[in-house]
Amino acid sequence: MVRYVYDFAEGDKDQKDLLGGKGANLAEMIRLGLNVPPGFTVTTEACRAYLASGAVPTEMAEQVTEQLRILEGKIGRTLGDPEEPLLVSVRSGAKFSMPGMMETVLNIGTNDASVHGLAVFSGDERFAWDSYRRLIQMFGKTVLGIEGHFFEHAIDEAKTSAGVTTDIELGVDDLKALVDTYKGIVREHAGIEFPQDTREQLDMAIKAVFDSWNTDRAVLYRRQERIPADLGTAVNVQAMVFGNVGDDSGTGVAFTRDPATGATGHYGDYLPDAQGEDVVAGIRNTLTLDDMGRLDPEAHAELLANMDLLEKHYKDLCDIEFTVENGRLYMLQTRVGKRTAGAAFRIATQLVDEGIIDTDEAVRRVSGAQLVQLMFPHFDHSGDRTLVAKGIAASPGAAVGVAVFDSETAVEKAEQGIKTILVRRETTPDDLAGMVAAAGILTSRGGKTSHAAVVARGMGKTAVCGTEDLAVDTTAKQATAPGGIVIREGDPLSIDGATGEVFVGEVPVIPSPVVQYFEGELSPDGDDDLVRSVHRIITHADDVRRLRVRTNADTPEDSARARRMGADFEEILEAMDGLPVTIRLLDPPLHEFLPDLTSLSVAVARAEERGDVKADDLRLLAAVERLHESNPMLGLRGVRLGLAIPGLFGLQVRAIAQAAAARKAAGGDPRAEIMIPLVGAVQELELIKDEAEQVIAEVAAETGSELAFQIGTMIELPRAAMTADQIAEAAEFFSFGTNDLTQTTWGFSRDDVEGAFFTTYLEKGVFGVSPFESIDRDGVGALVRVATEKGRATRPDIKLGVCGEHGGDPESVHFFDEVGLDYVSCSPFRVPVARLEAGRATLFKAGGGSDSR
Amino acid sequence: MVRYVYDFAEGDKDQKDLLGGKGANLAEMIRLGLNVPPGFTVTTEACRAYLASGAVPTEMAEQVTEQLRILEGKIGRTLGDPEEPLLVSVRSGAKFSMPGMMETVLNIGTNDASVHGLAVFSGDERFAWDSYRRLIQMFGKTVLGIEGHFFEHAIDEAKTSAGVTTDIELGVDDLKALVDTYKGIVREHAGIEFPQDTREQLDMAIKAVFDSWNTDRAVLYRRQERIPADLGTAVNVQAMVFGNVGDDSGTGVAFTRDPATGATGHYGDYLPDAQGEDVVAGIRNTLTLDDMGRLDPEAHAELLANMDLLEKHYKDLCDIEFTVENGRLYMLQTRVGKRTAGAAFRIATQLVDEGIIDTDEAVRRVSGAQLVQLMFPHFDHSGDRTLVAKGIAASPGAAVGVAVFDSETAVEKAEQGIKTILVRRETTPDDLAGMVAAAGILTSRGGKTSHAAVVARGMGKTAVCGTEDLAVDTTAKQATAPGGIVIREGDPLSIDGATGEVFVGEVPVIPSPVVQYFEGELSPDGDDDLVRSVHRIITHADDVRRLRVRTNADTPEDSARARRMGADFEEILEAMDGLPVTIRLLDPPLHEFLPDLTSLSVAVARAEERGDVKADDLRLLAAVERLHESNPMLGLRGVRLGLAIPGLFGLQVRAIAQAAAARKAAGGDPRAEIMIPLVGAVQELELIKDEAEQVIAEVAAETGSELAFQIGTMIELPRAAMTADQIAEAAEFFSFGTNDLTQTTWGFSRDDVEGAFFTTYLEKGVFGVSPFESIDRDGVGALVRVATEKGRATRPDIKLGVCGEHGGDPESVHFFDEVGLDYVSCSPFRVPVARLEAGRATLFKAGGGSDSR
Repeated sequence: MVRYVYDFAEGDKDQKDLLGGKGANLAEMIRLGLNVPPGFTVTTEACRAYLASGAVPTEMAEQVTEQLRILEGKIGRTLGDPEEPLLVSVRSGAKFSMPGMMETVLNIGTNDASVHGLAVFSGDERFAWDSYRRLIQMFGKTVLGIEGHFFEHAIDEAKTSAGVTTDIELGVDDLKALVDTYKGIVREHAGIEFPQDTREQLDMAIKAVFDSWNTDRAVLYRRQERIPADLGTAVNVQAMVFGNVGDDSGTGVAFTRDPATGATGHYGDYLPDAQGEDVVAGIRNTLTLDDMGRLDPEAHAELLANMDLLEKHYKDLCDIEFTVENGRLYMLQTRVGKRTAGAAFRIATQLVDEGIIDTDEAVRRVSGAQLVQLMFPHFDHSGDRTLVAKGIAASPGAAVGVAVFDSETAVEKAEQGIKTILVRRETTPDDLAGMVAAAGILTSRGGKTSHAAVVARGMGKTAVCGTEDLAVDTTAKQATAPGGIVIREGDPLSIDGATGEVFVGEVPVIPSPVVQYFEGELSPDGDDDLVRSVHRIITHADDVRRLRVRTNADTPEDSARARRMGADFEEILEAMDGLPVTIRLLDPPLHEFLPDLTSLSVAVARAEERGDVKADDLRLLAAVERLHESNPMLGLRGVRLGLAIPGLFGLQVRAIAQAAAARKAAGGDPRAEIMIPLVGAVQELELIKDEAEQVIAEVAAETGSELAFQIGTMIELPRAAMTADQIAEAAEFFSFGTNDLTQTTWGFSRDDVEGAFFTTYLEKGVFGVSPFESIDRDGVGALVRVATEKGRATRPDIKLGVCGEHGGDPESVHFFDEVGLDYVSCSPFRVPVARLEAGRATLFKAGGGSDSR
Repeated sequence: MVRYVYDFAEGDKDQKDLLGGKGANLAEMIRLGLNVPPGFTVTTEACRAYLASGAVPTEMAEQVTEQLRILEGKIGRTLGDPEEPLLVSVRSGAKFSMPGMMETVLNIGTNDASVHGLAVFSGDERFAWDSYRRLIQMFGKTVLGIEGHFFEHAIDEAKTSAGVTTDIELGVDDLKALVDTYKGIVREHAGIEFPQDTREQLDMAIKAVFDSWNTDRAVLYRRQERIPADLGTAVNVQAMVFGNVGDDSGTGVAFTRDPATGATGHYGDYLPDAQGEDVVAGIRNTLTLDDMGRLDPEAHAELLANMDLLEKHYKDLCDIEFTVENGRLYMLQTRVGKRTAGAAFRIATQLVDEGIIDTDEAVRRVSGAQLVQLMFPHFDHSGDRTLVAKGIAASPGAAVGVAVFDSETAVEKAEQGIKTILVRRETTPDDLAGMVAAAGILTSRGGKTSHAAVVARGMGKTAVCGTEDLAVDTTAKQATAPGGIVIREGDPLSIDGATGEVFVGEVPVIPSPVVQYFEGELSPDGDDDLVRSVHRIITHADDVRRLRVRTNADTPEDSARARRMGADFEEILEAMDGLPVTIRLLDPPLHEFLPDLTSLSVAVARAEERGDVKADDLRLLAAVERLHESNPMLGLRGVRLGLAIPGLFGLQVRAIAQAAAARKAAGGDPRAEIMIPLVGAVQELELIKDEAEQVIAEVAAETGSELAFQIGTMIELPRAAMTADQIAEAAEFFSFGTNDLTQTTWGFSRDDVEGAFFTTYLEKGVFGVSPFESIDRDGVGALVRVATEKGRATRPDIKLGVCGEHGGDPESVHFFDEVGLDYVSCSPFRVPVARLEAGRATLFKAGGGSDSR
């Protein structure tokens, strides 16, 4: 016989698959000897059987009966008994908590008869009728699917006719009348009488939890998160205890450390004479745990002891729910608690110092995403601020500067040392110089995957996008906010990339101490305990990680730096003496070298209309028309340009070779590697390699220098991945260009599908996160895996790396480690994230644990 | 000890790997007892050893010495002997014949001393000195790499100073002087004396053949054809026989059937008193084999007997080279002969009727490419024709019509029953209606992979592209040909898509009887023996093939037909009653629904300049700007459009479901299948499938009809291929869209990379044929294979097919058969090709043979 129902006392915390998270943790607390109201868990297996057949398995119904009998025995009361009724709660508990699933029905077991017994037993008639009222309301909404506003409207009317303003002022008679009204609502909207059979109440609630596994929101969430659709949820049935039966009762939540700051100590909120939902509702002011100690020292002492026990047991910050019923403490729930990014780092190192976990585990306990949060400055919330608009929080940070409406002005101001916010309807690659120069970017169009958002995140620059309330007029150089507030060039603005808020004026900014540490401005041994924690964790990640981390100079910011240096390969090789420098040959699409066809056509047409068109302009237009590409991303780029224009790549290789020769002559150790972009076939690489080797030999002969360069290729086309075995015959290294590889593997370009389309895809759960942000493991990742295997099959010592956005994305770093690449390369701002996540990847693999972030 | 050298008598025709094609066939003729001048073959293995080490293996030199001694013994003359010299030829002979490799050096063994012996021995002093002259010239060019024009210039000067006009008029003294001059050329340009050591001559010639394996042209050819670079070539050293030693000597070529028509009988050319190169040079008129019979009946009778023997032995048309020396017949070469397409079909069925091969083999002997050639009409060569320009033969056939310069006019004329030639600089998708309406397409830009060429081939429509001499002015509606000939709208034109020729006027056209047969206009049992052959072969291919062949209605021609029918799904289902009809939901890129941004911008700018801009136009421009995509191929298309615009696909599905319901109500058997385009992730398919199934259920309820449709997807993105296991969970069939798959796998769009770039790639050998024409097995094909395996792993009975260009391409059909697809779908014109090649694919697989086309 299949076991579908387990007593809480039978499980433990490692049985989340079968009992769900909540059930497993309740079982664990019982195992630890804590006082938990008894109950039982209906397993995920029962849910799966129900969903597959559409009916509750017979064994399950029998086992619920048996467990209910045991529970009634333990409590000494019976479900639905008119004298001494047992009341139970029914709660869902899947392996992963999931928005959209049914949460809780309390007070199951109350009916027209037992409500009287409850009144007698509790000595509180009002409590009994209020409990009944609450049951019908919760049951009606969550089990019967009646819209909540019918009940809320009824209770509002009851208050009006009673002449009171709050629920607790309603008297017994008011509540009795309300119960009748509620029954009417059930009759009208569900077409049934509210069930008086208390076992039927229980069975219906359990089935409702099962059914809620397949609500639209839950299905969507699973689709986004790729959670298997067939896991199912468990259901926990637990004897009710009441915190609202007098002054020696109450309910609360507690944390074993401060989840906001990570500070040690016991934190929590307590509400005497209340039920859990009252704490959440926030009607009454809560007390601290210290206040609770004064009110009820015994329960308080037991709670603190339980908290210490649970934290030591779970070896982490615990988040606890409890109730005190007539002075007796009951533990209702525990789980490892959520915390802020700063708290995560502080707690991890505290636990090491307390001997509870080792440093490996501390590294596992924090994430790159948390580290990123710590690397942004933030606004001082205490300052005066005038919010004028709100957009999408596209790239975190707090930026302050004067408004500018074009790139040129942003660059000019930057040269004068003036900080700017670049305000555009949207950005294009033409705006890159301005984006580099500006302190922050504000757009009225585009979402998290827009050009502005993606480039800003890559640079670690603050951006607020899609601020649709803002009417941006770049010609007039002004933007109009709601209420007619006009922002003109030169007006000070402050934008918060973490909240999407836009303020006029200068809001004071607090810089990130973590960035100051990474830039060497703050000592790792100084006063800032957050910096000390980050330092300890990142250096340990460095010690354990297998993946090497490189930085690339292909973000606009670094390119600008290289340009300021005169883009002289020699200086780069000097700066990087003794270190490998991979130089990618010319890559941008042809159209980036050409004037825009539409603008030029319009200019020529206008000139023609005015009768002053120039022959040169007509010739230029003809040339641009001839070279125009319908799909520049799929046009004459990279190696194709190198093959179509003989000598183009040779020129670059010559410059690199000459720079290396000069460095050698000066006693340096240049280690340049030459990388060919957009290769799809080994033949392309062979042809360019032949040309490069000839040029290198020429320069070697001219300079008398011995020159040798590794020559490798980008793998950024599906064909390159599928034929990596052939390509590895000519390539000494591969660098995966996962941005382009994502474009071609999915067949969409970032430029063209952002905005409405990506938003639709994220909403509909086609993907949980943009594949440009985090590598698409199943598709793009599968090609990376194929190329890795094929490349190594041909050339076992081939060097494999990745460059581009994904190299600094936490999820992606884990994937690249798993696939066995040698290094990731990312923008400088993302290097700490890559270091941390590379370390974590090693530890999760070694520890056999899975990354639970 | 490794055997590097074999006597001809030791080999046979199956040893092509070791002895090369020529050596193996020489050996085979000796095995058959034919009179072949003796000689020996230096193996491909020797070549490989030489190329690997850069030196001739010691054993090889020793074995050449030994074989040379045997050869001298057989002939009774010695190499370089001043009295009775042995002369030998040295010829390359790789497994595959390869352009760019050294072909032949004749007369090795002649030097200052032996030339006198040769004169005495042959009794012809002029012959001896001419032989010496020829040796130095051939040796100088092919072994020493001296440019040929030096020798040609010298012989021209010799003729001038002798006052004669042809080589044969040069006397002995002229030739002696010429030999001296030639030696001077060798001294000057090769920096050595012409070698007098005849063994050195031989060794140098052998090494030159080896070295020619790696000439640029040979390397390029192998790269294009993906022939392994390490096969190497064999070298054949053969005793010279002379056809130029009198009237009872001569040389010729012969075919065992007519290679032009396939007619039975003995065909050939004979030239008395001549050497092979004289036949090729075409200086003198050749005789027929019958003439030869009158001149030299004995040799003639022996030749005919040999030809019959060889044809029976090789079971195919043989191509033979022979020499008669003083009345004695020598066989110099044989191989299976090349033939025209018509001859191929006729010969194949003849051989069946003669009991030499079976029908399976007859199907193997012809190819889809040959069938395509037979399906085009051709011009009557006897007619008057005025050639005005020549372009690239882009799509075969012979088309006649009046010139039109825009699509609209082509459509208008077609409606009036007037045939047209659409003349454009190049075509775009906007020209599709005109291309459908026109009889032929003529462009001044673009090559074999241009839009015009590719679309025309898909439609089976004649096209000449890249006619650069033609200046096309679409505004003035005229084209100017060289010589100032102006072609205006309405002028008659004739274009030959097989030759690229453009004629003014109407050239008479002969229709293809094969097409008449396929269209049911000619009986398979009629007078036309070509039709009878094609019929016998194609029906046998149908009997044996495993792949099913479908036709698709996605070419513009078929779409037009569908549009004329009102694009009413019901009529399509009626026409296809009982047969599966796969309907692809809306696929074209968004931009095809929108006005062109540049044109519209220019129009608005002009209106603004004139001060009469309309508000509607401004609004339209703003909308087009908002929806403009930088890369429409990578934009809002296919399933993305269906998801971005809720209900769009639902509308189409409703129309299909209603049509099916109506057909059922009328007693029909509609078998519609619904295909979702451009799916990259199973989630996309699930969402659309949910919508479709809901709509189908609604229509079923509305009509009371039981409706069931297979729902499947295109696999046209690399991601779809890599995640085909997931996609197969939702898809009942896959149809590979290999056009788009090629675009994304290679990361280039057909529209953008044709012309200069593709030409460069074909020239440089990156590919041998455009991957849009024939499937790229290693890259795109590998993805098809992956998707097939993954799809079947999830759903073993999943139906797999391919649609688009590749479905009608012979090479690709073999690949799809090999991968195990269930069907190919192609344009109607390509259906016979697909049927034939599907049959051949089965037979090559079954027979264990390889497709040698």
